Amino acid sequence: MTPEEALAILAKFRDEIDAIDRELLETLNRRTRVVEEIGRVKQAVNFPVYEPKREQDVFRNISENNRGPLSVAAAQRIFERIIDEMRSLQKMRIDGGKS
Amino acid sequence: MTPEEALAILAKFRDEIDAIDRELLETLNRRTRVVEEIGRVKQAVNFPVYEPKREQDVFRNISENNRGPLSVAAAQRIFERIIDEMRSLQKMRIDGGKS
Repeated sequence: MTPEEALAILAKFRDEIDAIDRELLETLNRRTRVVEEIGRVKQAVNFPVYEPKREQDVFRNISENNRGPLSVAAAQRIFERIIDEMRSLQKMRIDGGKS
Repeated sequence: MTPEEALAILAKFRDEIDAIDRELLETLNRRTRVVEEIGRVKQAVNFPVYEPKREQDVFRNISENNRGPLSVAAAQRIFERIIDEMRSLQKMRIDGGKS
């Protein structure tokens, strides 16, 4: 493979990554909307925002359904960040609604 | 809304989240496979694994295409983690291939 050939192949793969990232972004925003709905329901009946047990369920769902090549540990670290960002957003909304 | 009604609604939303997470996981694994392909091409022609300029492109793609409710900053932090995990995997594969 010449460097020029490699560059052409890499450009194609990068377009693929960009398309996948737009898809991921859309799905993450869809997840955020459901998390917001959950927040509204919890607020209406005064349930706590943070439920460690539910978090365990989320991680179990990941580890049971992961077929790789991403390791379960790597996938869990990514979902930790996802959960964390969405929890911050939920807390911000609730605190904002209170003030 | 009674607490019982809230629990039923929350259960439905959680099923939705679980389905979305399986979708995210599948898309993340698809992204990992493309990253692995990129790694193989780079290795074949001795290109560096880490390219800061490309990382900027990935973040620009995110910020230009984000329609919320996730903030651009939150989305970028999630993608930082995604990029980081996939780079670690790529480095492990290359180091493994060398030994």
